[in-house]
Amino acid sequence: MRMAELSRESGVTVATIKYYQREGLLPPGELTSPNQARYDASHVRRLKLVRALLDVGGLSIASVREVLAAIEDSAASTHDVLGLAQHGLPIARLEVSEQDRAWAMEQFEALAGRRGWQVYEDWPVTESLINVMCALREVGHEWVLGSLNEYAQAADLVAEADIDAVARLGQTEAIVEGAIVGTVLGDALFAALRRLAHAEVSRKRFG
Amino acid sequence: MRMAELSRESGVTVATIKYYQREGLLPPGELTSPNQARYDASHVRRLKLVRALLDVGGLSIASVREVLAAIEDSAASTHDVLGLAQHGLPIARLEVSEQDRAWAMEQFEALAGRRGWQVYEDWPVTESLINVMCALREVGHEWVLGSLNEYAQAADLVAEADIDAVARLGQTEAIVEGAIVGTVLGDALFAALRRLAHAEVSRKRFG
Repeated sequence: MRMAELSRESGVTVATIKYYQREGLLPPGELTSPNQARYDASHVRRLKLVRALLDVGGLSIASVREVLAAIEDSAASTHDVLGLAQHGLPIARLEVSEQDRAWAMEQFEALAGRRGWQVYEDWPVTESLINVMCALREVGHEWVLGSLNEYAQAADLVAEADIDAVARLGQTEAIVEGAIVGTVLGDALFAALRRLAHAEVSRKRFG
Repeated sequence: MRMAELSRESGVTVATIKYYQREGLLPPGELTSPNQARYDASHVRRLKLVRALLDVGGLSIASVREVLAAIEDSAASTHDVLGLAQHGLPIARLEVSEQDRAWAMEQFEALAGRRGWQVYEDWPVTESLINVMCALREVGHEWVLGSLNEYAQAADLVAEADIDAVARLGQTEAIVEGAIVGTVLGDALFAALRRLAHAEVSRKRFG
């Protein structure tokens, strides 16, 4: 199909498609003349994925690019794939003082001990957690961390369900994409459900 | 303090502070001459909050503006405040077909029935949930919704802890900001813990 049809099929305007191409989010079409390219169903699918990650997952263009690169690195084994789940998390580049970092690390180690988790200090996702904890302290709302146990318990519950579901996908092409999309859109799913549950708990308690 | 000191105190460059001012994220300082303004501790605090919402919460500039407006609308009662928790959720402006919408709504109503939740079709957060569900279907990963029960159970667990914690803040000035910051940064906290739990569950099961 040509660009105009790609736009109709995907529901994305031509200008936006060209922008995604410049940003490296969409592979080029097959050139049929110096000024014309042909696209196929894989381009439609990719555009829908990009929209979902941007509009629903709330990712930045740069994060979408990273996520797509991870999906395309299909040499990954199932075990690697399950480790890929770290993608799509905004890694906070927060400047954290040594003192704050040590305070957060101590809390995380205590939590990990209670839940039987291993601690890997150099993991990007450990860094993210430490940064969120330090940010809460920095803005004067470290009381949120009083619920760390419940958050971790809920995270284990969701992670068990996630890994079960990804394992059931089997060794198909879709597993890498599935693990990553499930992780990113799963955040959005949980965030919406958490707000609905807030309203519900508040209604039952104060309504 | 002057702009240079505000920059030192907050760790935000002068150029970035001016950008935030143009974007309406930082109130103007008190003018001491036509070209000079004076800032105080509230500006430092605001800048730290803006950085936390942007860098750690992963919000867009537009979302930060909405969140700050909600925080400043301090006429809200405690009950309103607990309802404010919907802020900071990227409301997906996804074009959803009537058919997909009906399919998602049916699943949500079944879920709400199982968990004893009320359904308000016109809530923005209901719209968000429907959009996430439709996006998962659109990209061919609706299998994620097989874990909807576990996600909702985890959301209830976190929401109970959140409402308990906000209620404990009492009727202070910090409660509106606390509810909103706790909601936004709570998403980031959960997202990091979920990925750590993924690694842990995967290690125990396949490692």
